[in-house]
This record gives sequence, C-alpha cells and structure tokens, in this order.
Amino acid sequence: MVANRGYFITVEGGEGAGKTSAIRSMEQLLRENGFEVVVTREPGGIAIAEQIREVILDKRNVDMDGRTEALLYAAARRQHLVQKVMPALQEGKAVLCDRFIDSSLAYQGYARGLGIDEIFALNRFAIHETMPDLTVLLDVSPQTGLARIHANRNREVNRLDLEAVSFHERVRSGYLQLLDLFPERIVLVDAERSEEEVVLALSAILIERLGLKSAGGNICNQNGV
Amino acid sequence: MVANRGYFITVEGGEGAGKTSAIRSMEQLLRENGFEVVVTREPGGIAIAEQIREVILDKRNVDMDGRTEALLYAAARRQHLVQKVMPALQEGKAVLCDRFIDSSLAYQGYARGLGIDEIFALNRFAIHETMPDLTVLLDVSPQTGLARIHANRNREVNRLDLEAVSFHERVRSGYLQLLDLFPERIVLVDAERSEEEVVLALSAILIERLGLKSAGGNICNQNGV
Repeated sequence: MVANRGYFITVEGGEGAGKTSAIRSMEQLLRENGFEVVVTREPGGIAIAEQIREVILDKRNVDMDGRTEALLYAAARRQHLVQKVMPALQEGKAVLCDRFIDSSLAYQGYARGLGIDEIFALNRFAIHETMPDLTVLLDVSPQTGLARIHANRNREVNRLDLEAVSFHERVRSGYLQLLDLFPERIVLVDAERSEEEVVLALSAILIERLGLKSAGGNICNQNGV
Repeated sequence: MVANRGYFITVEGGEGAGKTSAIRSMEQLLRENGFEVVVTREPGGIAIAEQIREVILDKRNVDMDGRTEALLYAAARRQHLVQKVMPALQEGKAVLCDRFIDSSLAYQGYARGLGIDEIFALNRFAIHETMPDLTVLLDVSPQTGLARIHANRNREVNRLDLEAVSFHERVRSGYLQLLDLFPERIVLVDAERSEEEVVLALSAILIERLGLKSAGGNICNQNGV
C-alpha cells in the first residue's frame, strides 16, 4: 500500500456464495470506522468498459474466440480500474469490488482451461501495479450455492443445472488453487454457514487487517484479533 | 511450420515505407509459384474485430487508457487471426499481412513507452502459437517516408509534421530493436531505395526462404541464393 492510498478489497466466490450481502456488511463496518467507501463491480458504469462489455455479450458474436473474450474482459477491467477504482484509492477511500482478477483466473484460467498462468500474465498487464490489498474468497459447495439460487427462483434443478455443477466444481477448485498461490492476499471464508456467521467472520478479518473497531464500537485490534 | 500449414508473412515499417507495393510484388511472385495467396490487414473484415476497432476509434473515448487500447488491439488481432489467418494457413495458403505483432511492439511498446517486453507478453497471449514465419521490415528514415506521403498529398511540412518526426524516429528505433530480438524471423529491407530495387530484394528473400523460382521462371534456389 503506497502513501495516501486507500484500501482495495475484492470479493470472490462461485454462484450463490453470498458476495452481495458480504459486501453490504463490510461496507457498513468500514463506514462505521470512518472510511469513505466505494462499492463497485465491473464494468462499473464506465462508458468505455460498458462498450467493451456490449461486444462481449453481443448475441451475434457466436464466433468469439476464448482468448479474444479474455482480452476484452481484461480491457474492460483496465478501464474500470483507471477511471473508478484508482481515483477512489488515491483519495484514500476503501473500494469494495464484486469480483476482480481472481474471477478471470478461476473461471477462464482454470475452469475454461486457458491456464491460470496465462490469464494471470494477461491481467497483470491490465492491472499493472494495482493488485487488491485483500481478497475475501467466499467458499461454498456448488450444491449449496446453486440451491440458494434455485430457492430464490422457485424452480427444480434440471439437466442443464446438473451439467453446470461440474463446471462450478472446477471454478471452486480454481479458487482453491489461487489460495495457495496468493496466501497473503486471499482469505478464505467458509460460506456454507449462515449469513450471520459469515458476517462475524468478515468483521474479524477487517478488524485484523485494517485495525478496525468492531461494529459495537469496542476496540478489538489491540491484540491483533 | 507445422505439417499442412501454409506460410505466414507479415510486412512492417513506418509511414511511407512502401508496404502496399511490397505486398503487391510478393503476392505476384507467390502466385507465379503456384501459391494460393490471402492478402489481409487487421481487422480484415472480421465483424467482431471491426466492432472492437470501433470502440478504439470512437471519438467519444478520449479517456481511453493506453493499456486498455493495447488490450483491445490484441483482442482484434486475436479474432482476425482465428477467423481469417489461421484457416488460410491450415488450407496451405500463403498469407500476406500488412502489419502484425511488430507494429504493436514498435509503436505501443517502444515509441509510446509501454515496454516491448510487456506488449510482447500481451500479444503472445493473443497470437498463442501463430507467430509469422517471415517478417519483412521495410526500413526507411522518417524524412524519406513522410516526404513520400506528403508528396502524394501535395502539401508543405508543417510544425505538427516536424513534431511527428521524433515519434517516427522512435518507431524506427523500436523496429531496429526488434531486428536484434528476432534475427531469424525478421529480415531488414533498405526501403530508401527505388521501388524496383526493393522488389528485387523482396524476390531474393522469398526465393531464399521459400525456395521459389524468380519471376522470370529461372530456378534460382539451387545454391540457396
């Protein structure tokens, strides 16, 4: 972390891991501790990044190569970073970003088979020096994660969903490999547990990493807990 | 060169180096020797690559970061390669491409200061295994190159043109560094000379590299000349 720079936190995990509520609880704790907080996700309303995303998602582009897609995601990431994340960090703000480099590593690098090393090299070019200070990995089994999503949608699991489970298993394996590669940066949170338990775990992480006070206002970081 | 693969030739050089006429003469010689030839340049009429190029060239996008731009060029390159160059090579054709990876290395990597190593790593991701078999570098001084362009346009050199000379000097220096980095692949052609002399030099290169017959029909490659 360089001088006059805020704190860059990314939240990762498979479908149904609970990223949205995790971000909400961290945002609240950070604000209670006096941080100005920016909550974002790519492409983050950045016009150039939105344009790039339109090319990726254009239904006519069925012939898009996997590497082309990875390059476009990296391009959109770069622009979102330059126009939204970096200015906020330079103003000393805390930035909470829903998915970042590790999503590309887990999904495209590992699960889609393009290779974690290759996707990392590509994304290093895109993000240059701006790696997250902290990444919270919400680990959940695909069964639990997909069940949560389906519960919301009120429908049965079908054949395509069952096929998807093996893909989501690979995504999870990819994320767990990243934990080995970046043990300082990535903190695993068991997201099989209840939302309340996850919120407590997240609070403990922020208190330890950032020297925050807990939500109740007690100073909990004197012993680094 | 893998089995059943054609021959991939790229032509590089600064403004006014004579790439268009060089490609025309090489195309002719290759056809006379029985090659099917595809002449192309990025984005090559590939819809996805054209869409990406529109994002790059969109006049509203004044906030586009240099790395975003490099990633987008690499994405367009990838798609053009996959949809046009690689299929032609797999059919055994000779592909003549006006500018390719070395333009990014010389212009963005060296002249714009992003770094040749970084732009090379990025483009390695984009092109993967498909490096050119041969790259013709038409070397011309910016003075000569720009004078040729201005002669065509019937106008005086102005202050902006003079500023541009220093940029084009850097592009030329970048290309000459690439010659050191890729001595097997890149062949320098002195393009200060007349078009006729350049055509003869190009013929000699193709005859030596591909074992072609010269335009007159004489077998010239028996001694590897």
